[in-house]
This record gives sequence, structure tokens and C-alpha cells, in this order.
Amino acid sequence: MQVAIPLFPRLTALDAIGPYDALQHVPELEVVFVGAERDEVRTENGMLGLTADATFAEVPDPAVVVVPGGIGSRDHLGGSPLVDWVRAVHPGTRATTSVCTGSLILGAAGLLTGLPATTHWGAVDVLARFGAQPVRQRVVELPEQRIITAAGVSSGIDMAIRLVARLVDEVAAQAAQVSVEYDPEPPYEAGHPDQVGEGVMARLAEYRAARS
Amino acid sequence: MQVAIPLFPRLTALDAIGPYDALQHVPELEVVFVGAERDEVRTENGMLGLTADATFAEVPDPAVVVVPGGIGSRDHLGGSPLVDWVRAVHPGTRATTSVCTGSLILGAAGLLTGLPATTHWGAVDVLARFGAQPVRQRVVELPEQRIITAAGVSSGIDMAIRLVARLVDEVAAQAAQVSVEYDPEPPYEAGHPDQVGEGVMARLAEYRAARS
Repeated sequence: MQVAIPLFPRLTALDAIGPYDALQHVPELEVVFVGAERDEVRTENGMLGLTADATFAEVPDPAVVVVPGGIGSRDHLGGSPLVDWVRAVHPGTRATTSVCTGSLILGAAGLLTGLPATTHWGAVDVLARFGAQPVRQRVVELPEQRIITAAGVSSGIDMAIRLVARLVDEVAAQAAQVSVEYDPEPPYEAGHPDQVGEGVMARLAEYRAARS
Repeated sequence: MQVAIPLFPRLTALDAIGPYDALQHVPELEVVFVGAERDEVRTENGMLGLTADATFAEVPDPAVVVVPGGIGSRDHLGGSPLVDWVRAVHPGTRATTSVCTGSLILGAAGLLTGLPATTHWGAVDVLARFGAQPVRQRVVELPEQRIITAAGVSSGIDMAIRLVARLVDEVAAQAAQVSVEYDPEPPYEAGHPDQVGEGVMARLAEYRAARS
């Protein structure tokens, strides 16, 4: 099964690489990174380059799609080759998935209308604009629609392990989990804004202003 | 503060990208990916290319080093330009850190002799060969030596959040955690071999044989 992970300028790298690393252990799956061109793509702050090895036209029939997010997702919300590709390939996939604000791209492709979905906590309002019903869940699986959306950034790891269970079986999913030693011990209870104080959110606002 | 993340052929991408994404939100930190040459580096199975933007010689004085692991780490255990660089820069860092089998590279550089350290569960014996005292912990912090080692793959996220607390403060660490929405919900209790049955480990052995 071919797993296509689209890359676009100013993506969040972990949105793509968390799922990639959980999926790449499973020999039934072959991951390809795809882009508007075969070229290097830089992350949101420009600090990292990732290679898109194939163009959208070269990957017309993936079994699985994993759309990452990041600030650059905003460039696609009015339509783009990426959005057109997601819309075109979805009818043939076994699973069309997103991490973080990747769900906005699924929304822009018209895939989430009237459906429950999730995204990064900072983009819930934007998701609703595409007709989705935002829910506060780490992973939202819609087996009938073959769509899975995951919450912010690191949630792609949780999503990908569940995806392996759907595509292969639960033994494979656990093998993927133990491979990446996903036995998390977050140092704080600070994974979501409703768990942290105003001081943390104020600092984050400063950081975002400094980085933009 | 400059954070240098070395890349080498056949690394595990998530070892590098988990910490990168937690650290890159903090404006006090500037991440640079470094390699033997300025060039693309491919991951263990060749499915992904990451760009090394600077050579080791161009990054002689990083404040922080994060060494990832992966099967390619084995190429360095008898010595390499990467090992020489780690040994040369460590005296000047505020923190020299590793994820997964990256700790074997710290060991090869002579940094772990007689010290407690961790690694991926599959490499504990190799770590001991470098004179380290392997401990079963997700993150091992040695403030006096300015060394932090993390366990397998996904543990780099936990490590990086703790590292932000050391380098900046705990508010910054929590801001990094909420940014990447690190509120994990692993789908199975299957993050370590002592949590899974023989069936899972047998499947993993099959997978590793198929991928090698």
C-alpha cells in the first residue's frame, strides 16, 4: 500500500514525521513524500528542509494520504494544487487522514462538510468555517467516510498507530508502537490550553509574535 | 543559543524531528541541522530526505547538541567525523543530548564512561559496551556533566521539553508542550517490550527482517 505524505512550504515537520516514523516499520506500507514539485520544502521557520520525492501528478492513486499542517496550510484554504489533489485522490483511498491544521486542507477539499473532525487547538474556529463539526478529541475516526483527523502536532503518532490497526491489524499497530517506544511521559500536564495557566499562554503569544 | 542537530545516513527521522519541533517554538533557540557535508541525508529505509544545512566545521561552538539515532548510528561506533565533532564541541555546550541510539554516539565519543544513560530498548547491550550504566528510564539527566540521554524514538519529545526547562524556564517548557499539543493518548499499552506479548515481538522481528 502506498502512503502519500504531501509537503508544502511552512509545514510543521512533526505533523508529517510522527506518522511517517510509526508507519515506516510496517513492510505492507511504502511511504512517499509528495509535493507540487520534486524539490526541497522548508518548514514554517525555514530551519529544516525536507525532500518531496514525487509530484502530485506522479502519485495519482495512493492507498493512504496523511496531510500535515503548519502555518503554511493557510496558503491552501482558498484552493491550491494540493487541495485539488486531495479531492481527486480521496475517492480511491483506504484512508484519508490529517494531523494538526492538515484538517483545514481536508476541509478546503470539501471532505469534512457536516462531519465531526479535529485539528490543532488554535484552529478550531477555522475548521468550523469549512462546515466541519469540531470535537475535542485527540483522534477522530470516521470509518464510513474513510477519514481520520488528529489534533495538534504530536497527535499524529497516536493517529498513525490507530491507522496501522485499521490497515493491517492490532498486532502490527502494537509492533509499530513498541518500535518507536511510544510510552510517553510528558513532563507537565500542559498538552492543551485548558490544562495550563495564563502565564503559559501569554508566553506562547510572545513566542509566536517573535517567530512570525 | 544555537541548537545543532547532526544528520547522518540511515538515521531515524523522528529522533531528530521530535526535539526539533518542541525546541523551534522558543525564540531563544536557533536550530541548525548539521552533517558531514551540506547535502541531503536519507533516513534508514531511504524513504525520506532531510537537508543538512551546515557542515560540522561550520558549527564549532553550539550551545546545545541533540544527537539522533537509527540503524545508521552503527556506522559511527568505531569513530567518525560525527563522533569527533561531538567530542570536540561537548566541553563548550550547555547541554549535549541524545535520542534513541544517539547515545551510542555519545558513548563512542567517550562521554558516558561510568555514567547512567539510556537508549532504545533494543540497544541496551551496545550502550553498556561503551562503559555507560544503562538505566530503564525515558530520560536520564546528568546536570553536572551537562548530558541528557533519552530512550527510543518518540522519547525525544519528552526530553526536549525538559531541556527547554533547563535552558530557559518551566513556563517556556510548558509553552513548548502546549504548542505541539503533547497530551498523548497511546492507543495501546505497548510502548516497551515488557508491556507486549510474544506475538507482537515476533511480528516486529518479521518486520525488521523484511525491511533490512
